[in-house]
Amino acid sequence: MRFDVLTIFPTFFDGFLAHGIVRRARERRQVDVAVHDLRDWTYDRHRIVDDRPYGGEDGMVLKPEPIFRAVEALTHHQPNPSIVLLTPQGRRFDQAAAYRLSQSSQVVLICGRYEGVDERVAQYLATEELSIGDYVLSGGEPAAMVVMDAVIRLRPDVLGSPTSAQHESFQTGRLDYPVYTRPARYRGHAVPAELLTGNHAEVELWRRRAALRKTLCHRPDLLADPTRLDDTDRRLLTELLHTPPPVTQPVECNL
Amino acid sequence: MRFDVLTIFPTFFDGFLAHGIVRRARERRQVDVAVHDLRDWTYDRHRIVDDRPYGGEDGMVLKPEPIFRAVEALTHHQPNPSIVLLTPQGRRFDQAAAYRLSQSSQVVLICGRYEGVDERVAQYLATEELSIGDYVLSGGEPAAMVVMDAVIRLRPDVLGSPTSAQHESFQTGRLDYPVYTRPARYRGHAVPAELLTGNHAEVELWRRRAALRKTLCHRPDLLADPTRLDDTDRRLLTELLHTPPPVTQPVECNL
Repeated sequence: MRFDVLTIFPTFFDGFLAHGIVRRARERRQVDVAVHDLRDWTYDRHRIVDDRPYGGEDGMVLKPEPIFRAVEALTHHQPNPSIVLLTPQGRRFDQAAAYRLSQSSQVVLICGRYEGVDERVAQYLATEELSIGDYVLSGGEPAAMVVMDAVIRLRPDVLGSPTSAQHESFQTGRLDYPVYTRPARYRGHAVPAELLTGNHAEVELWRRRAALRKTLCHRPDLLADPTRLDDTDRRLLTELLHTPPPVTQPVECNL
Repeated sequence: MRFDVLTIFPTFFDGFLAHGIVRRARERRQVDVAVHDLRDWTYDRHRIVDDRPYGGEDGMVLKPEPIFRAVEALTHHQPNPSIVLLTPQGRRFDQAAAYRLSQSSQVVLICGRYEGVDERVAQYLATEELSIGDYVLSGGEPAAMVVMDAVIRLRPDVLGSPTSAQHESFQTGRLDYPVYTRPARYRGHAVPAELLTGNHAEVELWRRRAALRKTLCHRPDLLADPTRLDDTDRRLLTELLHTPPPVTQPVECNL
């Protein structure tokens, strides 16, 4: 698959492209990422990409022409590109959207800037508007990284193990379970004894309880769908809600 | 305010630090950002930061010792640092969390990696766990950028105009209104006539209707709180829900 990123700050992405799974996936030609300077599609001497908003307001708006020209040039040979405008006004990007985009042969990511992007880009050029969360950024560049990272790691063969992208948060309607590594005791804090038993069933039960506990503390909204809970989940949740917190519990969540 | 980022990929942030509001805010000494290599707090020859998880599982877990040492060294002189572990298992980062962190004198951002971070970091070192959205990344680095960008732009004097961070999405319980700039007609698509009238009241009413329409299409959940809607909002929403879509409407949302 191929990503084309449209930005006024192309070198913003240098560090992102040089590290981790993104670097590896590019080296192995599992994914292609091209970052384009939006100003390359301006025709004026000052390479202007923005202008004042109609109706009056502070701030500047990205003009439609360079974005239309760039996207049309970049998607010329593709039958069905995903053209994503990254904006706080978009639908929420989530793990399901990451899976969907990972099936696409080409994804164009348009990074908004300033006060916004001329709405005709959203209405007549982009195939979708996506927001990575309920906060406002100064530009779409960090959002483009987030989308690429979440999508690339779902591509076949990108993660070392085929199971690595499974059993993880948001797939199962709950947060992932906590993990521990050596030392078994650090600064007086011991790894839970269940994880040291070598008893697979006991480990699994501990992990399930711990995942539900974390979800109840941090994201109770994920537990709202009862069809995603089985009898064991329901029993564990009932226990969690009726057991007094241990003395060593962190203050953040008294479950 | 000061950010300290803890990562195994310190140069990941070079592009982020060199552009836009973050570069400007650092040049003007409105904010200080220091990126630290987690491996600087290892004591072994191979500078190992990860190890296998207890209880068995694929993948590697970031060890607690280098992270504890680093955070303690970096927060030594600060009375009340915010120590944030970036993880999909955290509470949701949103605009309210960005405002809260923007009041902090020091924010330490711990970037998770691999299959996770030893849970003792979350329980006994971090003051909070934050997730930037319901998707899984290969590491916390893009999330750290998102948090810094969202927070820095809320600091006093960072944005050009004092009103620029107001009237925006997630402040008002709805998405922001669409913006347009020249040309008034592009590829047959005209800027809405209301924005060209020069009539302030008409512009404001158009913007309010357009913001509600966008919110209804992309984020109806934001409209669930009736106390955030006034009589005009309710009238406009009723109209939107009972007006047949115009012929020129984009297919994405038929309102």
